[in-house]
Amino acid sequence: MQKGLRRKDLLGLKDITKEEIELLLETAFSMKEVLKRPIKKIPTLRGKTICFMFFEPSTRTRSSFELAAKRLSADTINVSSSQSALLKGETVLDTLLNVDAMGIDAFVIRHASSGLPHFLSRHTNASIINAGDGMHEHPTQALLDMMTIKEKFGKIEGLNVLIAGDVRHSRVARSNIYGLLKMGAHVRLFGPPPLVPREFEKLGARVFYDKNKALDGVDVVMGLRIQKERLKESFFPSIREYRKFFAITPDDIEKLSDNVLLMHPGPVNWGVEMDYDIMKVKNNVILEQVTNGVAVRMSVLYHLISGERDNEEDIN
Amino acid sequence: MQKGLRRKDLLGLKDITKEEIELLLETAFSMKEVLKRPIKKIPTLRGKTICFMFFEPSTRTRSSFELAAKRLSADTINVSSSQSALLKGETVLDTLLNVDAMGIDAFVIRHASSGLPHFLSRHTNASIINAGDGMHEHPTQALLDMMTIKEKFGKIEGLNVLIAGDVRHSRVARSNIYGLLKMGAHVRLFGPPPLVPREFEKLGARVFYDKNKALDGVDVVMGLRIQKERLKESFFPSIREYRKFFAITPDDIEKLSDNVLLMHPGPVNWGVEMDYDIMKVKNNVILEQVTNGVAVRMSVLYHLISGERDNEEDIN
Amino acid sequence: MQKGLRRKDLLGLKDITKEEIELLLETAFSMKEVLKRPIKKIPTLRGKTICFMFFEPSTRTRSSFELAAKRLSADTINVSSSQSALLKGETVLDTLLNVDAMGIDAFVIRHASSGLPHFLSRHTNASIINAGDGMHEHPTQALLDMMTIKEKFGKIEGLNVLIAGDVRHSRVARSNIYGLLKMGAHVRLFGPPPLVPREFEKLGARVFYDKNKALDGVDVVMGLRIQKERLKESFFPSIREYRKFFAITPDDIEKLSDNVLLMHPGPVNWGVEMDYDIMKVKNNVILEQVTNGVAVRMSVLYHLISGERDNEEDIN
Repeated sequence: MQKGLRRKDLLGLKDITKEEIELLLETAFSMKEVLKRPIKKIPTLRGKTICFMFFEPSTRTRSSFELAAKRLSADTINVSSSQSALLKGETVLDTLLNVDAMGIDAFVIRHASSGLPHFLSRHTNASIINAGDGMHEHPTQALLDMMTIKEKFGKIEGLNVLIAGDVRHSRVARSNIYGLLKMGAHVRLFGPPPLVPREFEKLGARVFYDKNKALDGVDVVMGLRIQKERLKESFFPSIREYRKFFAITPDDIEKLSDNVLLMHPGPVNWGVEMDYDIMKVKNNVILEQVTNGVAVRMSVLYHLISGERDNEEDIN
Repeated sequence: MQKGLRRKDLLGLKDITKEEIELLLETAFSMKEVLKRPIKKIPTLRGKTICFMFFEPSTRTRSSFELAAKRLSADTINVSSSQSALLKGETVLDTLLNVDAMGIDAFVIRHASSGLPHFLSRHTNASIINAGDGMHEHPTQALLDMMTIKEKFGKIEGLNVLIAGDVRHSRVARSNIYGLLKMGAHVRLFGPPPLVPREFEKLGARVFYDKNKALDGVDVVMGLRIQKERLKESFFPSIREYRKFFAITPDDIEKLSDNVLLMHPGPVNWGVEMDYDIMKVKNNVILEQVTNGVAVRMSVLYHLISGERDNEEDIN
Repeated sequence: MQKGLRRKDLLGLKDITKEEIELLLETAFSMKEVLKRPIKKIPTLRGKTICFMFFEPSTRTRSSFELAAKRLSADTINVSSSQSALLKGETVLDTLLNVDAMGIDAFVIRHASSGLPHFLSRHTNASIINAGDGMHEHPTQALLDMMTIKEKFGKIEGLNVLIAGDVRHSRVARSNIYGLLKMGAHVRLFGPPPLVPREFEKLGARVFYDKNKALDGVDVVMGLRIQKERLKESFFPSIREYRKFFAITPDDIEKLSDNVLLMHPGPVNWGVEMDYDIMKVKNNVILEQVTNGVAVRMSVLYHLISGERDNEEDIN
């Protein structure tokens, strides 16, 4: 077991230890205290530069990382896909190597290609933070989800966490499955079979196709976004059909214990996987997840950029 | 009468008092002194975060607010319509609530829908500053116009201010009418009847359809932008017709007293409501308005974010 | 000969003296030391504001200038062509005058029109830095190229520098020809006759159409980008033809002395003017050029904004 986080990158939760997750969450709780002060800013990363490379549209995640960086006093730079050399046909690696040569401490990358952050990491000594790669991982989202669960229950171990919706195409689900299982939670998956294949049980989760059974004895219900793109691919007969059997409704939540948390990574497709009424449901923590997102990202940036690294983490 | 500005939002000048306007202008003059220093920056809003949500194209207003924020040492974040979750069909309220949960002190909002800032204000404890909502209000523009008038004449009360052009569709005109009347000015409106309906007299202004009469004895001439979109709607027969009877020309200004101020909120549609020559006219203060815009916005941000608030202003 | 750089603008290297170039490079080497520190930031330009007006897509140059500004602690503002009043038909001069009135210390401008920065400079007291104007000049690129040459050889005078590719349409080539000749280098130009017209010899360079002769005894090989747009204009029969006779290949470089530097201003059109293998060639300094770009731009911003100016430089 190691003292301090000594890694160059945060690429996913698959290859991170329980101790590292605990350390990141512990620091995130300290960062949240900073965010409650009238002056929500500390000089920790002054003179450091963080580059955002978002190749998919994003308001929440990009803003959350940007605020995290600014509240640590880092400088930030955006290299998004519009108004960029990408228009001139440059590859992502070319762009990264060039911006890297300007003296970047960390890159925060979102891209539709699974594994791209891992590939890029091998070519730079800067830290790479995966802010979502295809259907692969979205580790800071899972960390903020776990922070929110720990904040409410005081623990994660032993809790029954239900992830409902399009698990198959969800990087949020994958990162949560890896992280929650490491932390000792029981992970349940629920949705129509084409979107929640039985194969997920190999990871250690349990798959449910019946809503009542899935919800029985649950502590946390985490809804996932149903991508409109998937509707066209006919993974389920119709939105109406989906809503009837698989959407989480305020009625479903009302039937559960008062302590059950309702979570969603956002943005919600209102009227598809959830109804807007659900915002009024007790123990809905959707906006608290967003608040915790800034704290978690401050923790990640702090540990990767200002921390010491093990030598073997250096690129070859 | 109150000491200090104790409000959460600046949504418009309709519901603000004369004393509040005076306080905002007084602070704006102090801020202008800061802008004359070699180091144009004060630490007043360090650790505060201001979010810009501009859903209409804007260079001037957005840049002016951004510079105002930076010169007060605030952090800023942009959530504009491109590269955002709005592409995913999220509502503006959803976006605001989510970014708000990240710890925002003030939102500066421009949107084509009249009244949207008022609606959003009821859902957040953050300050909302209306940077232009449809044809409704644009309060900081009117404040900077009043600051410029006060700077030149030492007063606003008793002055004859002519607002010329497309008053009907102008949020700048509405905010100026409310503000100038409160400050004791006489407000005249001039333009073709479809663009300056007689109904505006109910607000306390006087409507003119004859240029000579409108200009007689005037102290300030404020031109308004003629939106090209309006031309299609045939509010007047042709640009040529409009220019002949309603455009303010350098000749018109030459005939007036040497002390008459020529103003325009910009951007000017050169060759439509004004000719480029007018930039050479004496007492043209169009660029001084721009300079004062930064000072006024610093004043507004300072009062809303760092000031105390009355309790009844809190959202319910 | 003057002590200190006393000019308002950096518009090109045609009208700058050798002493000024030497001063800019000397300061750039000092700035590079700052960039090696753990805290890569100095307070030199605190409270100053730099406005970026990029009307052509750019990742490298814009990012490089932005990082240079931030590391000098200046505030920055972007007025790019999207989301701007330009959509409303405003002219570039109008935009500049308006943003200028908000208190800007320097404008960094990229535009497709040759000479636009010179035109704009006559209308503002702010510093204008040309970040590329049409096919005219790109002075900071040439300065960073010269810095890289000086860093490797300890001198520029007497070196044989080959510029290869589309010299005719290249602002990078023009600025380098002016700068390198002033610094006492021998400048060779190489490419197909339509892209490297003999007329360039009037500037003091030597034109070559044979690769072996061009490379004989050379110290520096600087590749230029072949704009895909040019292919359509049939300046040469085909890419295949071009590559056979005019592209610089790893084999070409291997045949040269071990000390020959390989440079390229980027972004490289891989497979056209160079192959990706060339990144592995010894003495390829393409990424070091990028690093030096930040240092050179810090030097330029420092000298123009914080320096004293000769009176005759003021606008009339």
